[in-house]
Amino acid sequence: GRPMSDQSAKRFKMSSTTCINTVRALAADVVQKANSGHPGAPMGCAPIAHLLWGEAMKYSSVNATWSDRDRFVLSNGHGCALQYSMLHLAGYDISMDDLKQFRQLNSKTPGHPENHLTPGIEVSTGPLGQGISNAVGLALAETHLAAKFNRPGFDVVNHHTYVICGDGCLQEGVSGEASSLAGHLGLGKLIVFYDDNLITIDGETELSFTEDVGKRYEAYGWQVLTVHDGNSTDVSELRAALVQAQADTERPTLIKVRTIIGFGSKKQGTHGVHGSPLGEDDIKQLKASFGFNPEEKFVVPDEVRTFWAARSAEGHAREAQWNALFAEYSSKYPAEAAEFTRSFNGDLPENWDAKLPVYQATDASLATRQTSQQVLSKVVDALPELIGGSADLTPSTLTKVEGNKLDYSKHHRDGRYLRYGVREHAMAALCNGIAAHGGLIPFASTFLNFAGYAMGAMRLSALSHFRVLYIYTHDSIGLGEDGPTHQPVETLISLRSMPNMLVFRPADGNEVSGAYKIAIEHKHTPSTFALSRQSCASLAGTSKDKVQFGAYALNDEASPQVVIAGTGSEVQLVVKAAAALKAEGINARVVSFPSWELYDAQSQQYKESLFPAGVPVLSVEAAAIHGWEKYSHGQIGMTTYGMSAPFAQVYEALGITVANIVDKSKKLIAFYGSAAPSLVIRPF
Amino acid sequence: GRPMSDQSAKRFKMSSTTCINTVRALAADVVQKANSGHPGAPMGCAPIAHLLWGEAMKYSSVNATWSDRDRFVLSNGHGCALQYSMLHLAGYDISMDDLKQFRQLNSKTPGHPENHLTPGIEVSTGPLGQGISNAVGLALAETHLAAKFNRPGFDVVNHHTYVICGDGCLQEGVSGEASSLAGHLGLGKLIVFYDDNLITIDGETELSFTEDVGKRYEAYGWQVLTVHDGNSTDVSELRAALVQAQADTERPTLIKVRTIIGFGSKKQGTHGVHGSPLGEDDIKQLKASFGFNPEEKFVVPDEVRTFWAARSAEGHAREAQWNALFAEYSSKYPAEAAEFTRSFNGDLPENWDAKLPVYQATDASLATRQTSQQVLSKVVDALPELIGGSADLTPSTLTKVEGNKLDYSKHHRDGRYLRYGVREHAMAALCNGIAAHGGLIPFASTFLNFAGYAMGAMRLSALSHFRVLYIYTHDSIGLGEDGPTHQPVETLISLRSMPNMLVFRPADGNEVSGAYKIAIEHKHTPSTFALSRQSCASLAGTSKDKVQFGAYALNDEASPQVVIAGTGSEVQLVVKAAAALKAEGINARVVSFPSWELYDAQSQQYKESLFPAGVPVLSVEAAAIHGWEKYSHGQIGMTTYGMSAPFAQVYEALGITVANIVDKSKKLIAFYGSAAPSLVIRPF
Ligand SMILES: [Ca+2]
Ligand SMILES: [Ca+2]
Repeated sequence: GRPMSDQSAKRFKMSSTTCINTVRALAADVVQKANSGHPGAPMGCAPIAHLLWGEAMKYSSVNATWSDRDRFVLSNGHGCALQYSMLHLAGYDISMDDLKQFRQLNSKTPGHPENHLTPGIEVSTGPLGQGISNAVGLALAETHLAAKFNRPGFDVVNHHTYVICGDGCLQEGVSGEASSLAGHLGLGKLIVFYDDNLITIDGETELSFTEDVGKRYEAYGWQVLTVHDGNSTDVSELRAALVQAQADTERPTLIKVRTIIGFGSKKQGTHGVHGSPLGEDDIKQLKASFGFNPEEKFVVPDEVRTFWAARSAEGHAREAQWNALFAEYSSKYPAEAAEFTRSFNGDLPENWDAKLPVYQATDASLATRQTSQQVLSKVVDALPELIGGSADLTPSTLTKVEGNKLDYSKHHRDGRYLRYGVREHAMAALCNGIAAHGGLIPFASTFLNFAGYAMGAMRLSALSHFRVLYIYTHDSIGLGEDGPTHQPVETLISLRSMPNMLVFRPADGNEVSGAYKIAIEHKHTPSTFALSRQSCASLAGTSKDKVQFGAYALNDEASPQVVIAGTGSEVQLVVKAAAALKAEGINARVVSFPSWELYDAQSQQYKESLFPAGVPVLSVEAAAIHGWEKYSHGQIGMTTYGMSAPFAQVYEALGITVANIVDKSKKLIAFYGSAAPSLVIRPF
Repeated sequence: GRPMSDQSAKRFKMSSTTCINTVRALAADVVQKANSGHPGAPMGCAPIAHLLWGEAMKYSSVNATWSDRDRFVLSNGHGCALQYSMLHLAGYDISMDDLKQFRQLNSKTPGHPENHLTPGIEVSTGPLGQGISNAVGLALAETHLAAKFNRPGFDVVNHHTYVICGDGCLQEGVSGEASSLAGHLGLGKLIVFYDDNLITIDGETELSFTEDVGKRYEAYGWQVLTVHDGNSTDVSELRAALVQAQADTERPTLIKVRTIIGFGSKKQGTHGVHGSPLGEDDIKQLKASFGFNPEEKFVVPDEVRTFWAARSAEGHAREAQWNALFAEYSSKYPAEAAEFTRSFNGDLPENWDAKLPVYQATDASLATRQTSQQVLSKVVDALPELIGGSADLTPSTLTKVEGNKLDYSKHHRDGRYLRYGVREHAMAALCNGIAAHGGLIPFASTFLNFAGYAMGAMRLSALSHFRVLYIYTHDSIGLGEDGPTHQPVETLISLRSMPNMLVFRPADGNEVSGAYKIAIEHKHTPSTFALSRQSCASLAGTSKDKVQFGAYALNDEASPQVVIAGTGSEVQLVVKAAAALKAEGINARVVSFPSWELYDAQSQQYKESLFPAGVPVLSVEAAAIHGWEKYSHGQIGMTTYGMSAPFAQVYEALGITVANIVDKSKKLIAFYGSAAPSLVIRPF
């Protein structure tokens, strides 16, 4: 952080008490008006926030997405009345009316921060532990992009990541995983203020949280500092710690700040101020004690407005300086500048997909994790902004290729392969942070079943509109011997039912190619690939380009008696079953169905052509059958957990076989004849 | 642990080298024959295992479920060739043939340990981090039951919990959460051997895991010890650490043991021995180096058999001693003994459910989280074995009642309320351990949305057949202002598609009563309750007893034109919509559908009577509609994330309203008339 000018310092000193108490009163008013929310953390953390927004942080409130801004994450997102208040004061596009609309329908100030709704919000927080973990991703992205784009004299990427978090965030396992990784990676520009207020929802932290947090963070390799009085509006102790944090460029820093929750309330220091409005009387006494008019609400004194106007101008000036720097950089390094701009816009290079592999039916059978490796290799070459790795399953998920062979590490910030360790939840949360930063497309990989460890963060990928690729392999009982603890059943439907999550289960190499293409072209949507451990025949009729339809026919059986829809490794079984039926004189259309979401988006006409009226549909997928009733009249799938044995035996034991597909197809035809009710034509 | 007799000590010393090397060779053979599995950890950890099974642990291999056995958890479950080998040697019902069936269909020796398949396996492990977290639950259960049942001179509950875990387990967030809690709770009889072999699947731990694990565990409040040579078959250094661990009764202990993965292999100390068979040549040289015949496989030398025969006899004798103690206890404390036996059998007291509340339609509206509190209060009184709490949301989930008002803590081992802290994943994993221990029924609670943090462990509740109650509240957009980060969408279908998980979404107090009753009576199945934040009318026609059918009619509309099925807080909307339709002369049957799984188990006849042929069905639930197509012709539900606003406005904005139910009912009738295809009569 750049030292303050004398003038700024003087201004800051004069106003800090009024500014901070204004924020405390404002947060109390905001929550009271909504009659819902969390006043305690904002009132306790107002001094930290004032130090950050009023002095330390680099931002431009007229351009919330300026690429070189410092990133701020309120990990205890329930305290967002604080964040909204700061954004309002700092001049972001959040008006006093917006503050009055806190927690109201369609407002910019929802109950927890949502990055896609509110300018100045980097990541959606509230589910505890996520924000601080996202921040590790934000800080990682900064180091990587700095290594990639900076040139002598041109530090076009050079900013900090600041976090405020509470006890809850530090109790969550995901933050432990992410913090261990942050220490390992030496993310020196990550600075976390820990609002150490001794209170949680249940009561005092004594009830459940008596570990030595500072020592734990030292064990992770962090610098740990302590601020004994975080309530003082003279923020000198906080400032000293911040300076020390900025000075350590090798280690992330945790600053333990002892605060009083709900500072100024009659109930301060108790869990009574955590999650409910204070009440009118308490707010009045609070304002009186701060020297404000107790009868006035939503007031920002002129002195405070003056402070923030000057402060905002400083921020705009810094952005202007950066713009000038970048203009010079553009003329000296036009290719780099163009790449910088493109990748921060989230755009793709022209013809980026030209080299995506296309497979022939004569090609050898390969597991889709193997074709994924081949496709990924081309994607890594085509998209320098792609960065990612595996949660300690690299030899299994096959996510390391020539183009990302260099590990990202504290010694190689330019490396593009991430060694997440056995930390699935943090992996997903980091990816959210990397995506939020801009300039990069992150990917994560593990076994599909361990999506169950990461759901908390994967859901936030989808809710937050982040383009993250989840490359999940060993996607069914097809993993065989490792057994049911590793064989997903419920995972696919869990992800398919998550709004704004694309799920692909490709049948072979062509569909893997298509899945990558579509996923990457969805700028605001995460995708999950479910890939096989076992081999999949390279099938006739599959198409990279037809994956976009979500489902399509592999054979041109014009008058089918039955349509058999499969996904992933089961499509090859469906193809064989159709041949066996044909040999018995039964016409079966084979449909490969790699993505429900994409199929749902097709025209009624397309759907009717694929699933003709009257023809029964059988679905085949080695996963829970839940949800398939929308698309099929009969289902073959999993109704129990899997088993530990060589995979072909498990398929046999659970009835996911060619013979059973043939049998159930006949049963469907016998039952429905040619009068199966349409699954496409619906009442609404 | 009781000190060894001189005779035992002598025997142990003579045989330990041969015994340990036998295990190493056996594990290598087991994995080689399966041509799949993980030899590295078993070979590295054989000395630890030998110390535990051969000397330290208390167990009776003829009675794997002896209640006062020491509990052993192999948290790095992939190393189960070790555990199976030890169980075999120690005389459990695992034959040499069983070892030869490693990872084969329907064997007792699956790819990862499964408690419900194999005698001597306490918990199903493999998904990393779970086992050590289960162990915290096991150790917690021991302290609670000891406080409850022991009497002067009668320590009928007095055993240790031992764990072996690897790097992977300690990288996972869930283990961090659980370990923090174990330290907080001072679980002195929990002893963890950390197989500190510097290797993970990706390669050396240097790649991603360089934190100071020992210091971190000290920060959690654990005793941390180090064994520098864990490979020596003279296990004196290991033994000294174990004695020190046992001596500290106030703190759990982590023993860091430096081992060489795949000890004895030519590839020892590399990730090459982690997850693949060693190969015949390597195994031959290994056996030769141990002084075994390199050509022989699956050999247990006579000396080793002799050692284990004596050791097993010791165990049986200890059980006999305990049986004698318990017989005396039974005569002195017959009520306690009866309760002990009943609860360890997993049986319920007679008429335990007699006081479950019954509600009338005239009763006040209450949120189902509130009726849950009323029901739970009765259950807590009726079932002394019920223990549980909340992940720091007690004031919201309403799980603290009169009967469990005392917190379980290091000072009050008899407390029945658990303060899990903000640790959802560990909460579920602890519950698995508590259930595995026997003698207790655990419950967990948080907001339904945060099931997403705990899925990894909840899945294992179901797979492992553990009776755990997940009391999850704030189950929809009905939580209102907290917004979409807290409003579940995909959670219900995620859990419904998880085999052996019962999911209940009760409509009102009667159904809450019924849900608790059924959940508790399912001895081998976990249950999730989805409970509302907002109030639910006490409805006419709801029934505690009819919940067992999964779905049932609330009105006796004999000739319905439409059936409207709702769950939870939406049933009250369905009731109103039916009244509105009636006013327009349209007959609608109202079905409350609290549990899919229970409905699926009903007779065809029952299903046809509830959903008559030809009558269209509309489903209404404030959750993803996925899966409802099985039960309804049209669906009202969530297709997007929710919103932050007062809940009624969110319902309105998303179309989950009486008016929309009326509208869609009419559309269904218009579309289908009385010829809707039956959803009950199916082709197979
Ligand atoms: Ca706190
Ligand atoms: Ca290891």
